[in-house]
Amino acid sequence: MADSPMLDLGRKILASQPFSAFLGAELLNLADGAAELGVPIRPEFAQQHGFVHGGIVSYAADNALTFAGGTVLGTAVVTSEFKINYLRPARGVLLVARATVVHHGRRQAVCRCDVFASENGNETPCATAQGTIVRLAAPR
Amino acid sequence: MADSPMLDLGRKILASQPFSAFLGAELLNLADGAAELGVPIRPEFAQQHGFVHGGIVSYAADNALTFAGGTVLGTAVVTSEFKINYLRPARGVLLVARATVVHHGRRQAVCRCDVFASENGNETPCATAQGTIVRLAAPR
Amino acid sequence: MADSPMLDLGRKILASQPFSAFLGAELLNLADGAAELGVPIRPEFAQQHGFVHGGIVSYAADNALTFAGGTVLGTAVVTSEFKINYLRPARGVLLVARATVVHHGRRQAVCRCDVFASENGNETPCATAQGTIVRLAAPR
Amino acid sequence: MADSPMLDLGRKILASQPFSAFLGAELLNLADGAAELGVPIRPEFAQQHGFVHGGIVSYAADNALTFAGGTVLGTAVVTSEFKINYLRPARGVLLVARATVVHHGRRQAVCRCDVFASENGNETPCATAQGTIVRLAAPR
Repeated sequence: MADSPMLDLGRKILASQPFSAFLGAELLNLADGAAELGVPIRPEFAQQHGFVHGGIVSYAADNALTFAGGTVLGTAVVTSEFKINYLRPARGVLLVARATVVHHGRRQAVCRCDVFASENGNETPCATAQGTIVRLAAPR
Repeated sequence: MADSPMLDLGRKILASQPFSAFLGAELLNLADGAAELGVPIRPEFAQQHGFVHGGIVSYAADNALTFAGGTVLGTAVVTSEFKINYLRPARGVLLVARATVVHHGRRQAVCRCDVFASENGNETPCATAQGTIVRLAAPR
Repeated sequence: MADSPMLDLGRKILASQPFSAFLGAELLNLADGAAELGVPIRPEFAQQHGFVHGGIVSYAADNALTFAGGTVLGTAVVTSEFKINYLRPARGVLLVARATVVHHGRRQAVCRCDVFASENGNETPCATAQGTIVRLAAPR
Repeated sequence: MADSPMLDLGRKILASQPFSAFLGAELLNLADGAAELGVPIRPEFAQQHGFVHGGIVSYAADNALTFAGGTVLGTAVVTSEFKINYLRPARGVLLVARATVVHHGRRQAVCRCDVFASENGNETPCATAQGTIVRLAAPR
């Protein structure tokens, strides 16, 4: 099956973020009100105890939140703020961040995101986040 | 003047985080209740509009919060949760995250962090964060 | 049907909180990992535009989070921190805060809460929250 | 010395909030970018252990944040979201919430707030908060 036009567009936007390309992030799914971002785990993403560094986990949450918000607000959006709780040390082969829109108006969307670490086909929840995505003001 | 033993120790810990080495982060200062982390800005840290990606800004905030908490709780600490508000698009040559301990007990510390983008010697505030650092439970 | 022992115990604890009695809050449900708190809306709970004041909404979220956490951690718990996004102005006859445990260990639970305003049998989401509930340290 | 016109206006707005009147909150100070809100502690504000209920502490933080934001955005503002960390059990005769604007644009302000419990002239920090205040959209 062909990917949806929304997912295609989302992948173009992700590819235009040098930092996301640098980390190797992939958009796994994008639909009305929902985004799924994957980050294959590499050795250089670790912290001192061998687990995935929180900075990668929060990147994944932040970016998935933004993409979810973008599905209802349009492509010119940024994360205004978010909060993240780390639940468990993350290890495995893939981080998956799944974000959904909880509520949105014309200007902003409140979204949630769960981040999982996947290994041997098992997903373990490792963080949960909540944040606000805002539409960039049009140039005047 | 020689660096303090605390700063030396902090730099060893930072160097033992593969992700921090991968990003090129540096510990600029570490003292009782305060940490200053610098991240030289590279082109691959950008988002699609050319500014520094929020994921780098939140990495810097998260890690500075952890190091600040570590100055009062000991070296075996992790960020349990944090919240970040992005204030302005970040651009320049260096991100600087300055975190301080607001309050701490034996087991956890509540810390704040301001993140600045530095260019031509001028610092612009680009994010502010607040979070909880917890001591890892001793193995039993 | 008789109420569960857990709900009975929860109601005793809620009744022992003078502030909850002062506001007229009621525990509607309490089960493993979930709490539902109701606050009948009174005119004195308004802000200047006639909607329910955010302070009541955040009280309801905070307390529902604590009770949800208590179902997995025991009765000696407090909210350590939480974050709330207000979604819509709240009005109606009843605020309902529904909290669930996302993840917990022995010492703390991360919980989410949705707050609704109920009027004429319709519920409107008005806030969403996420926070950490911690077990009080035993006296030593 | 006469109170400033800004403080006078703030007190009128606070008085127009039935919930703030119900709790007995007072605006102690209001200036460009800063607000100080006091809540005299009454027995009915307690939780089950005799300390001030978190719901009152978060009300004070939330409202002080809103007033601080209002000093730079105008009077038609609401708290969009905030996060609070409780630091210590609060007891005493007066809660004091001091909020300041960290950064603001035309549409929103990011503010911080520290809440203290005052007893015998001593102030003890009991919570710290950070949030976003937004200007209400003009009717169209």
